[in-house]
Amino acid sequence: MNARRPGPSVRTRVREVLADGVQLRERSREDRVATEEPLEIRVTWPGATPTRLWVTMRTPGHDFELAAGFLLHEGVSGIRSVAYCTDEDLAPEQEFNVVTVTLDQAPAALPARSLGGLSAGSSACGVCGTDSIEAALAVRAPRRSHQPPDLAIVRSLPAVLRDQQRVFERTGGLHAAGLFSATGEPWVVREDIGRHNAVDKVTGARVLAGLDPAAPYLVVSGRAGFELVQKAVAAGVGVLVAVGAPSSLAVDLARRSELGLIGFTSADRCVVYA
Amino acid sequence: MNARRPGPSVRTRVREVLADGVQLRERSREDRVATEEPLEIRVTWPGATPTRLWVTMRTPGHDFELAAGFLLHEGVSGIRSVAYCTDEDLAPEQEFNVVTVTLDQAPAALPARSLGGLSAGSSACGVCGTDSIEAALAVRAPRRSHQPPDLAIVRSLPAVLRDQQRVFERTGGLHAAGLFSATGEPWVVREDIGRHNAVDKVTGARVLAGLDPAAPYLVVSGRAGFELVQKAVAAGVGVLVAVGAPSSLAVDLARRSELGLIGFTSADRCVVYA
Repeated sequence: MNARRPGPSVRTRVREVLADGVQLRERSREDRVATEEPLEIRVTWPGATPTRLWVTMRTPGHDFELAAGFLLHEGVSGIRSVAYCTDEDLAPEQEFNVVTVTLDQAPAALPARSLGGLSAGSSACGVCGTDSIEAALAVRAPRRSHQPPDLAIVRSLPAVLRDQQRVFERTGGLHAAGLFSATGEPWVVREDIGRHNAVDKVTGARVLAGLDPAAPYLVVSGRAGFELVQKAVAAGVGVLVAVGAPSSLAVDLARRSELGLIGFTSADRCVVYA
Repeated sequence: MNARRPGPSVRTRVREVLADGVQLRERSREDRVATEEPLEIRVTWPGATPTRLWVTMRTPGHDFELAAGFLLHEGVSGIRSVAYCTDEDLAPEQEFNVVTVTLDQAPAALPARSLGGLSAGSSACGVCGTDSIEAALAVRAPRRSHQPPDLAIVRSLPAVLRDQQRVFERTGGLHAAGLFSATGEPWVVREDIGRHNAVDKVTGARVLAGLDPAAPYLVVSGRAGFELVQKAVAAGVGVLVAVGAPSSLAVDLARRSELGLIGFTSADRCVVYA
């Protein structure tokens, strides 16, 4: 365990050019960029050999949460433990890039992604949005009774999320996600180079703490595509609040699953899609 | 072929809330959201049964280009034809979501993604950034002699890209990518809900037109992560120009492969990382 754990950002030398009218200023300086490294998620249970499930490019940190949240959103629960892999044949720089999740027992099914990456469609002969929605509804969390959204609170959430972003300030390069209470208090905020990873990390943090991930609000710093809505539905959250635009399939799935979906959210505006 | 082809955006009814100080205005109106639908890419060659290779969530349009670009970036060349799937067992809504690429002959290897989605690492026992870089260098395009970047031209490119975005205007929800000449003339610009798809579409457009995809400049509207740098390297472009921030692994790969990498690009600023 002597390997140096990668941090969320790394220093690098850059050349910056600033144009001020026709004047050009150029300087060499040190910059910080967000760390991006692969993370492999393996899953096992008593009596089983670990299965390699998925590899995601992520910003190191909160890796156990990422793995736990990823599994939750794929409909797998009952986590006994999560650990970095200690295979003797791992090189030092690989040691913190492989996590193994041990389940209490064999799952009903492993996520379809592990079987060829073709998880977007359930049909053997083709794919379409309807298939994707049906697949997402199959791993929907049990129904919660969330309050209708308070739009004054909703409009306040992106600023709170932004305030809690530590790494973005230094690198300008990270997405953020946060779970919030009904009164707009942040439960947990995480950052990652991948917006789906940031969402996995926040719900995974709740799961590993033994808490319900079904927050009244899930707030994301970017756009709301199908994948993020699918994760919100699987976690049982009340409303997905996005700073950016939603997609057609995201709107369709939110409406089908009674998830609230609000886009273009800022202090003085929001657009309710579902 | 009676199925209605999905367009790049769809209409939906929304409720918009605008806050003007303490005054709240609320209205119901029609909005447009970017279309998101799965696309399955299959590959075949004379004498072979089609193999299902990958499913991506994409904005419909330029699907053949997307498939051709995806294959180019995975190191597969020699495309004979691309067609929508005409399996009799496809439902009408699936018909335009499956494309089959026919190659001239069997490829040396199929992309690793098709073999379990674990393409980010080449090692059997673990993953790390170095593995990812080695895997990317293995599908690097033959060396081109590109001119050093002209930073005045570079700073002009994001505005040109933005001007060419047709769907973004209506939906606020799409990424764009463009290939540009050494003098900053746009060769091809494409939009997609996924930034990697937009890059696949621009290089695929060149490939299908029988033209060299190795443009002097590849411009992307968002951040530059590892995956986009990998695609730029595989296509043989000179400089990847991003409006947003790069990641650590993106910088490392660009330096290893002698790709130029410029981030935070706007009319009055740019930061040279590689």
